[in-house]
Amino acid sequence: MRGVVMYKAGDVRVEERADPTVVEPTDAVIRLTATCVCGSDLWPYRGIEAVDHQVMGHEYVGVVEEVGAEVRTMKPGDFVVGSFVISDNTCEICRSGFHSKCVHAEFVSQIGTQAERARIPLADGTLVVTPGQPDADLVPSLLAASDVLGTGWFAADAAQAGPGKTVAVVGDGAVGLMAVLAARELGAERIIAMSRHPERQELARYYGATDIVEERGDAGVQRIKELTGGLGAHGVAEAVGTQESFMQAVGATRGGGHLGYVGVNHGVQIPGIELFFAGIHTLGGPAPVRRYLPDLIRRVWDRTIDPGRVFDLTLPLDQAAEGYRAMDERRATKVLLEL
Amino acid sequence: MRGVVMYKAGDVRVEERADPTVVEPTDAVIRLTATCVCGSDLWPYRGIEAVDHQVMGHEYVGVVEEVGAEVRTMKPGDFVVGSFVISDNTCEICRSGFHSKCVHAEFVSQIGTQAERARIPLADGTLVVTPGQPDADLVPSLLAASDVLGTGWFAADAAQAGPGKTVAVVGDGAVGLMAVLAARELGAERIIAMSRHPERQELARYYGATDIVEERGDAGVQRIKELTGGLGAHGVAEAVGTQESFMQAVGATRGGGHLGYVGVNHGVQIPGIELFFAGIHTLGGPAPVRRYLPDLIRRVWDRTIDPGRVFDLTLPLDQAAEGYRAMDERRATKVLLEL
Repeated sequence: MRGVVMYKAGDVRVEERADPTVVEPTDAVIRLTATCVCGSDLWPYRGIEAVDHQVMGHEYVGVVEEVGAEVRTMKPGDFVVGSFVISDNTCEICRSGFHSKCVHAEFVSQIGTQAERARIPLADGTLVVTPGQPDADLVPSLLAASDVLGTGWFAADAAQAGPGKTVAVVGDGAVGLMAVLAARELGAERIIAMSRHPERQELARYYGATDIVEERGDAGVQRIKELTGGLGAHGVAEAVGTQESFMQAVGATRGGGHLGYVGVNHGVQIPGIELFFAGIHTLGGPAPVRRYLPDLIRRVWDRTIDPGRVFDLTLPLDQAAEGYRAMDERRATKVLLEL
Repeated sequence: MRGVVMYKAGDVRVEERADPTVVEPTDAVIRLTATCVCGSDLWPYRGIEAVDHQVMGHEYVGVVEEVGAEVRTMKPGDFVVGSFVISDNTCEICRSGFHSKCVHAEFVSQIGTQAERARIPLADGTLVVTPGQPDADLVPSLLAASDVLGTGWFAADAAQAGPGKTVAVVGDGAVGLMAVLAARELGAERIIAMSRHPERQELARYYGATDIVEERGDAGVQRIKELTGGLGAHGVAEAVGTQESFMQAVGATRGGGHLGYVGVNHGVQIPGIELFFAGIHTLGGPAPVRRYLPDLIRRVWDRTIDPGRVFDLTLPLDQAAEGYRAMDERRATKVLLEL
């Protein structure tokens, strides 16, 4: 089968890889319908994470081709959406809702779903079957649920978005936009998107942003305070992962408020004393997407939400290298790879 | 009146200070019955925080001597316990329970309650009247409520101590011991005290610790994991504030678990990526003691809890310098200053 391999930073190729097979009785092999390039794929692409002939991809929807003897919740032909972290959905950590810290957690990025097929371990715990075969126009939205929607949702949930609440979103990439959508769905009264790109501001407003703040850093914090009676936002969703964005998110959260952070924060050093005197709740990390998947799939299926609009470039898998380039050069927010 | 002044690091004196008076109509002037030396007072004493002729003290119980015209909830003669942060108890932040981030917050350490008298601003929002004049043996426990008990309680609450939960406490100083007591009162099933001092281990067991772990750092984390089926504690209360203790607390918390941190963490740099992949909730900072005070006073008054035992040295105010020395040299866990 064909699949994406990142030889080294900036060098992405589509080449022949071995076809996956069922190895463990809890495995499923799926044929990908669509996959995509993640903002986090740009870390190795830009040389910030080490990379050496690495298979790529951790976002995926597709059709089950084969299941192991112990798989109970799906059969060949079913359409499935999976989380970007393998989980058993039965251990104590999963039962508490933190599937990304499952005792059997494994990152799907090690499997590489930018490919024609993929072996998914612990299929019952990782994949969720859709109510039927999706209409073609639903595929991008289902694919979004696999990571960017689930991750943005986790950020908004961790920020305790809800009725009567003001939520600020730091970051206008795909995950930030999905946090805006999630905050709206969770009932937030006011949603402040921090963005200085006109087309992303427009998409943020489409997804539910009520206010746009273009300032960053201390000026951004100051602006959020002005908009919230001097107090700061009840909740902030951080979806970038730089030193500036993280501290901006800390500063924009009111005392006793909630910071949800999902930007992979390489190299960030949080001054303990600043976090201490901020007096805020924080929750972050790789999102437990599996917890949210059944609900997110239902909302997509019912056409209540339209997260797929976050994909602004669609390419065939063979043109993955161009997809990476487009995201790296910020010509695209999020690239869908078709199969 | 007499009061403590720290001239410079290591130089604590009791000298004449001006008698306080009611300045604002919301003030109360109290005559101190007892005050004490806080672990955080050792930061300037040891030269880690700058200090120059600073009045000292932020923990206090006493009798109201005079109130301003707008004070409604107390009158001269009432016995009161106060928080170490001034709060109005009416603003949006206070109403959400985070009095230490009140829009009118002011640290009592700037007032200096290691003294015969103190002016307490926003008396209605800061002080709580006890049900009557306390028996002498209750005074240390009421004094503890003012900071160490309230702070330990906040740490245990932030760690979500409760039925069925395993809570680890990092730090066996007064606040750590109070976090143990709080975890027990909140119903935690298992309470692991991290301590290597035999007499503090004994006190920890008295207050409810079910297990003692002597290891620190990575070895301490490993031991907590061994005691919790490899998962880590549901909640961890951090009551030290060093780099090692903070990261030990992060590592000892299970995925999706709760870290409550109350050690003033000067100089700590939290690696963002480690916190990210830990996937935990955190909540910390100066404790909103005022939120807990009515409940804590009731528990002390009913003799349900005995936090006063944390004071292992009592001295007259005039010997404050010896009290600082005893705590600095770890000859005492917590020093009560009598008036």
